[in-house]
Parts: sequence; structure tokens; C-alpha cells
Amino acid sequence: MSASPYKQLEQEFKRLHAFRGALALLRWDAAVMMPRGSADVRGEQLAALETEHHALLTAPKITRLLDRAQANLQQLEDWQVANLREMRRQRDHAIATPVTLVSRLTKAASRAESRWLEARAEGKFETFAPYLEEVVHLVRDKAALLGQALNLAPYDALVDEFSPGLTTLDIDAMFKALSRRMPSLIRESIALQESRPPQPLTGKFPAGKQRALAVEVMKAVGFPFDRGRLDESEHPFTEGSSGDIRITTRFDPDDVFSGLLGALHETGHAMYDLGLPQDWRDQPVGRDRGMALEESQSLLIEMMVCRSRPFVRYVQPLISRHFGVSGPEWDPENVYAHLTRVQRGLIRVDADELTYPLHIMLRYELEKQLLSGQLAVRDLPEAWNAGMEQRLGIRPSNDVEGCLQDIHWAVGSFGYFPSYALGAVIAAQLYESMRAELPALDEQLSRGEFSGLFGWLRTHVHGLGAKVPVQDLLKNATGKPLNATSFIRYVEAKYLETSASSAAA
Amino acid sequence: MSASPYKQLEQEFKRLHAFRGALALLRWDAAVMMPRGSADVRGEQLAALETEHHALLTAPKITRLLDRAQANLQQLEDWQVANLREMRRQRDHAIATPVTLVSRLTKAASRAESRWLEARAEGKFETFAPYLEEVVHLVRDKAALLGQALNLAPYDALVDEFSPGLTTLDIDAMFKALSRRMPSLIRESIALQESRPPQPLTGKFPAGKQRALAVEVMKAVGFPFDRGRLDESEHPFTEGSSGDIRITTRFDPDDVFSGLLGALHETGHAMYDLGLPQDWRDQPVGRDRGMALEESQSLLIEMMVCRSRPFVRYVQPLISRHFGVSGPEWDPENVYAHLTRVQRGLIRVDADELTYPLHIMLRYELEKQLLSGQLAVRDLPEAWNAGMEQRLGIRPSNDVEGCLQDIHWAVGSFGYFPSYALGAVIAAQLYESMRAELPALDEQLSRGEFSGLFGWLRTHVHGLGAKVPVQDLLKNATGKPLNATSFIRYVEAKYLETSASSAAA
Repeated sequence: MSASPYKQLEQEFKRLHAFRGALALLRWDAAVMMPRGSADVRGEQLAALETEHHALLTAPKITRLLDRAQANLQQLEDWQVANLREMRRQRDHAIATPVTLVSRLTKAASRAESRWLEARAEGKFETFAPYLEEVVHLVRDKAALLGQALNLAPYDALVDEFSPGLTTLDIDAMFKALSRRMPSLIRESIALQESRPPQPLTGKFPAGKQRALAVEVMKAVGFPFDRGRLDESEHPFTEGSSGDIRITTRFDPDDVFSGLLGALHETGHAMYDLGLPQDWRDQPVGRDRGMALEESQSLLIEMMVCRSRPFVRYVQPLISRHFGVSGPEWDPENVYAHLTRVQRGLIRVDADELTYPLHIMLRYELEKQLLSGQLAVRDLPEAWNAGMEQRLGIRPSNDVEGCLQDIHWAVGSFGYFPSYALGAVIAAQLYESMRAELPALDEQLSRGEFSGLFGWLRTHVHGLGAKVPVQDLLKNATGKPLNATSFIRYVEAKYLETSASSAAA
Repeated sequence: MSASPYKQLEQEFKRLHAFRGALALLRWDAAVMMPRGSADVRGEQLAALETEHHALLTAPKITRLLDRAQANLQQLEDWQVANLREMRRQRDHAIATPVTLVSRLTKAASRAESRWLEARAEGKFETFAPYLEEVVHLVRDKAALLGQALNLAPYDALVDEFSPGLTTLDIDAMFKALSRRMPSLIRESIALQESRPPQPLTGKFPAGKQRALAVEVMKAVGFPFDRGRLDESEHPFTEGSSGDIRITTRFDPDDVFSGLLGALHETGHAMYDLGLPQDWRDQPVGRDRGMALEESQSLLIEMMVCRSRPFVRYVQPLISRHFGVSGPEWDPENVYAHLTRVQRGLIRVDADELTYPLHIMLRYELEKQLLSGQLAVRDLPEAWNAGMEQRLGIRPSNDVEGCLQDIHWAVGSFGYFPSYALGAVIAAQLYESMRAELPALDEQLSRGEFSGLFGWLRTHVHGLGAKVPVQDLLKNATGKPLNATSFIRYVEAKYLETSASSAAA
């Protein structure tokens, strides 16, 4: 007797999972290990695998099996019904995009990524522009087709790929709430911090020692080094598959924290992937619940947990030991002041929690304009610089600190940026509930103990995989739908604290 | 109008080429970068891609196109006819092995490889044995099926996969000739060398400096670092695809040469791949002409070129500069004595040219016995040790320096080992002809100039790809079919030189 349609689908999607794992490794290698001149070869490999993945996912066999399994839902368990829904979702997205477009986009993105690296090295946007333009054209075609198939506006269709169940309605509501409060909060915070400036943390922090410190902290957090790696790349990222997680960071010898916090940000992603339901690991329902939730996990760790007084109490002795530094500037309170410094800066990945959403708003608007054709690629640098000046009052002096800083557009990731802001807002909402339920959390964190934290996250987030929509997950975990109130409450408490409460902490 | 059947085949095989490149990268990563605990995940990825590669290659569509193209040979150019022959060859090999067996073998090999690494670390053959046994069983099934389909004896069918056109007849003839001369030549050479022992090359040679030296020499040789990498692994190897060549070596801080020569051996492979016809790079006819010829290229560089007086004259000043060493023991003649030292040793990859074929004979006989069932896996250590004692008069004191030293059997590569001995014999045959045609070769090598050498190899070997059978290639290049005479002439001249000729060099 042959396997049921549903069981056959599980086999098919297990194979697709392995394909995606191979693709992830090819991408990781391209960014971390691959010789520069091999980009064309890699591009063809990625295209061949993407194309085949696409062909397998959109084969008539899958549609037939999906229909037959759908007709027998009563035989399935809850998680299997959800799995079937996610299978259909993947197929729907894939079938909307013709295989030739997938292949062209993959090749164009591979070329553009390698030109982006060169353009950064040389500080020349012009050498990158034609490659970005090719990517924009192809993404525009894709968005139009996806939107038609999913009955969504083109840009919403792209967002739906990354953060299923969220749309520009959610994003606009969030940005509206943030726009009302963040500019004044940034001013107030900077004024407050200027009234008590921290002592500078000067010194040289060699990459090798920074790496050793990062590894020690990552081990305490729970990063599985027997099933993962830490490497260095231009732009920190997490790649790989559940069971082989690869994260990267970059170490700046003049900055003791940027490399560590980059690594911890990515560790937040890795811990999410690690906490996904093992029994469903090679099935669609066993995947993460989209990029907004992914980013919530990295931001929760980096911003809320690691830029806190309890974490500083834990990490400060490690810093002294690894770098042999001491003196009043290394007192926990001074270190904390650095970690919560609000500054109008040009680089998104270095931005603090308050200015970060403004960076995202800029990218959100620019990428919508690029896709709609309202903004030409050649005009991007000027539009970027003007936008930064308008929002943050500062202007990049070159494109490396301007529109060349992010890899996303080069690799065709349009519709991804909002996930970062959604992630911050979701993280704050989760963190508020978690703290209410775990009164001993701060004490644990100050001892470098993260098991309570991740226990809560496994129960309410990680362990659910893609079983429930993100809005339902949030309601179950926090009692409320997605909203920016917790975030605003959190940043107000953190950045407008009185001198008294600061001294007492 | 649609493309001709032949042109459609070119497209299909271009895709297969990309799949193989992706598989090569996954294997390279597994040996060099992958966290140990991720072997199961990687095994599934490899299996999924191998299975799909196999399915695409054996699809009815390919057979149909092959038949239609075969019926219109007169429309094709010479190289296209050869390409068609190679396409058919690949299909014939693939179709003989059912997809379930391919998948099981890939998974078993992935598991066995990771257990082999563990067993080496712990020095325990027993923990590896059951995994090797599984591989042996599956390879035995594969050999039987392949043999039936290709009308070859099972072992010959495996040899044909690696070294098309060569069989046990060729191998036995070679070993017979070598058996007649090598044992006495080893004795004579050792006696001669003992009469004038070299001064020891003592010192510490840090891995970082060894790497820098290896990179400098590899650059002189012509290794394309913009399209390739040098890394470290347990066992040196070459992986990747044309256009993204990855080689590895291992550095021993007590030995200035083993890491360098390992790297140069693999550079020999890389230069072959680099010299393959670019116009055919993603087609079967653009591939190397089998492993015996591959090994001839690595051994020619490592053994014949780099263990020569001209090369020593080039490299000796580099060694002084990189390690800050000087003194009489670093005189070129003393260095040369070390590079041509004949010793009865336990490790194949460290073996000299004279004892090397004996290492291969042992493996050749043991792997035939393992496959025929004449030798049980559990009895391998004892059979290995007894064989070493019989052939070389020395006995491993543990399995790490015995039957655990090579990765080949763990990953299912049975029928590969003879390529090394065939390679040495082919290399000597080519080198003899090359030297006769390039009178200035020694002078060029002593200046670190390798363009004359590789020019000859491109014309007579590399640039032909897989267009002609290896026997024809040899006849065209050297005027003679494969035979061991050149090799014996070469080693006799090199290792039985008179003191006078040595002093005069």
C-alpha cells in the first residue's frame, strides 16, 4: 500500500528542505569563503539549484497531492493541517513566479552582490548601479506577478514572502505611532545623555581577542558550536539550516562592542532556529514564522537583553579579562552608558534602538519608490542622502556610509527592511510579557544565565515553528495584537530614566 | 524553431555541471569548515542533490536526445562527437545504479566520513568499522550492477568510473613491471643514501609562515588565488569546479616540507583543471580525462618537478627568507638530499617515489578482497599490518598510521587507489618526453618559471579535456602506449646517481 497523499508530501518537502539547506551553504560560502573571481560559477550553481527547487515545488504532482490531502483533513493532526497550509503557501508563492524569472533573478543577484562588494571597497556607486538596476527590474516583475496571484498589492506580496500575514497596513500603523513619539524622544534622550557624558572607552581591541570574547559569551547564551560556526564577513548575517547554523560578524579593533553585539544579534537568530520544533525540522511547519519574528529574536537579544545593566554586570569582568583593561571608564555604569548611547549615526547596523526605526523608514520608502519607478536607481544616492538629512539631520559624505551600506537590495531582498522595525516592536511586546512572568530574569542575566529567558521563548515563540500566524502567536504570548505601545513604553523607561534610578541600578 | 537534440543535450549537461559544482562545494565544506555535529544534515543535502543529479542524468528525455543526436553525427564537429560519447558514458554509468542505491551510498559515506574523522582522533578502528562495513556492502552492490551494465568485471567497472579506458589488465601489467625492479631499487637507494646521510633540517616552522611560503610558491606556479583557495584539512585534497578550485594541505610545525609539497601536489591537480578547455568548461568533454591522468599531474609537479635540483635552487632562498634559517644544512644539495630521501614509512601521503607504489599495491589488493568478501572489515587492521610488514618490512603500531590513514574507503572510493600508481607511471612517461622537447626546462625551474612546463602540458594534456582516451593521449604525447619503462628509467637515474654527478649538479 502506498503512502497517503499527505505522507508523500512530507517526503517531497523534506527533499525541498535539503535543497534549501544546500542553497544556504552556497550563499554562506559566497559571502565568507569564496574567491572573488568565482562569482560567475557560483551564480550558475545557485541558479541551477533554485530552478530545480522551483520546478520540484511547482510540479503538477505537488498540486495533485495537495488537493488530495486537503480532501482528507480529518485524518490529520493539528500540526499536520498547519503543515499542509504552509506547503500550499510555499507552492502558491512559487507558482506565481515563472522559472525563467527565478533563474534570471538569481543570476542577477549573484552578479550584483559581488559588484556591491567591489563598489564598497572602491566607494563607487556607479559601478554597482547597472547591476542593481537589473535586480530592481526583475524584482518589479516578480512583485507584479506575485501580487496578481496572491491578490495583494505588489509590494505587499513581497512583504508576504518574508513576513507572512503582515502588510503595509500593519507597517504604516506602526510607523505612524513611532513617528509621533520617536523624534522628540531622540531629542530628549540625547539632551539627557549630554548632561552626563560617559568617559571614553579607548584602547585597541585585536580581532582575535574580540573573537575569543564573543565565543565565550555565545557559549553562555547557548550557541551550539558543534552545529554552528562564527565567521567574519562584510555584513553580519545568519545562514545555514537548522542543525548547521552559520553566523558572521565583523570586528572593529577600535570598538570593543560592535563585533560582540553583531555576533549576539545573529546568535538571537540562531537560537530561534535552534529552538524550532525538532520533530518537524524538515517540514514547512517547522520553519521560523517569518522575518519580522526572526528579527524580533535577534533584536530582543542584542538590544533588550545585552544592552541592559544585568548583562553589563555579567560581561564587564569578561572584558577586563580578555583585554586586560581596568579603570573607572570600565565601571559597569559607564559601560552601560556606552551601550545605550543615542547618536544620530549613518550606519543602520551600528544604530541605537531609538534612531534605528528611522533608518528603516527611509529604506521602506526608498524601496517602494524604486519598485514603483518613482525613483531611478541613478538617483538613489541623492535620495538617500536627502532622506537621512531630513530624518536624522545628518548627511553621508560618501555612498559607503550611504546607500551602499546594506546588502539587501543587491541580492533582491525588497520588502525585507520593514521586518527590522516590526521585529523591534514585536520584541518589546514579548519582552514586556516575559519580564512580568519571570521576576528573577535580571538576576539570572547578571550571572550569565540565559536558560530562563530561552525557556520562555521556546514555549511562546521558538517551539511553535510556523504553526500559528504571527498575530495569533503575539496574542497568545502577550494578550494583545501587534502594536507599538510596549516598544514606546520600553524606550521611554530605558532612555528617560531619572539620574536617581540610574545611580541606584 | 527549437534547438537541435545535441544543443538541448548541451543545456542539460550544463545544468548537471552546476549540480556537480554545488556538490563539490558541499563536500569541501564538510571536510574543511562544517561543524562536526552537522554531518547528518549535510548527508541529507548531499543525498538530495546526488539523487536529483542522478534523476536528471537518467531521465528518459536524455536517452531520447542521445539517440536522436547520435543519428545526426555528421552535423557535429569533432569535439561535439567526443562530447556526445562522454555524455553517453556518464548516462551509462548512472543508469546502471538505481537511485535508491545512490542515495543510500551517499548517506552511508557521509556518516562513515565523519566517523572516520572521530576514529582517527581517538585511534579506534572499531568505532569506524560498522560504518565502513555499510559502505563496503553498498559499493559491492554498485560494482555488481555497474559490471553487468558495462560488461566489465565488478572491480573493473569501479576503476572505469575513475579512470575510463583502464582496467586491471593495465594495472596488473604495471605492478608486475614495478614488482620486478622496485624492491631491489629501494634497497640499493637506501644503501647509497646511508653512505652519505644528509644533515638534519631541525627547527620549528610555524603553520602561518609555512602557509605564506606555500602561497608564494603556488603563485609562482600559477595557482589562481582569485578563483581558488588554500585551506587546511586532515587529508590534503582538491575539490570544487573549474573556476572555483579549492585545495587543502596540512602543516606540520616540525617539518618544513610536508605542508608545502602537499600544497604543490594539489596545485598540480588545480593546474590541470585550470588548463582544461574553457570553451567546453561546462560540458562532459571539457572535464579531466580521469583520475589516473589527474594523479599524473599532481605527481609530476610534486615528485618530478619539486623534488629536483632546479626547484631546490629556486625554493631554498625562499625558505631562508620565510623562516630565517641558514647554515650548511640549508645548502641546496643537503635540502635536495632530504627531498629525495627514500624511507620505508607507514604513511602513504608522506611516502617517497620509490616506496609509494608498494603502498598502492597493498591498498589495491585489500580493496579487491574487501569487495569480493574474501576479507572481512573487522580483519582489515591485521591484514593491513601484515601486508605492510611483508612489503615494506615495517608494521604500524596503531590504526591511525595503518588502515585509518586514508579517507578513500570511508567515502566509498573503491577502485581509485590504482590511479595513484598509474599516475606516477604516466607522469614519468610525459616528463621524459617533455624534457626531451624543452632543453631549457631545468634552467627555467631554477628561476621559479613554470610557463614552459605548463605550456607543454596544456598542449599535450590539459587542453584536450576528455576528448581522447588516455591511451591515445599518451601515444600522441610520448609516441608510446602506457608502460612503466620511463618510470623505472627515471627513478634509477634519480636515485642511483653517482657521487660525481650529484656533486656536479
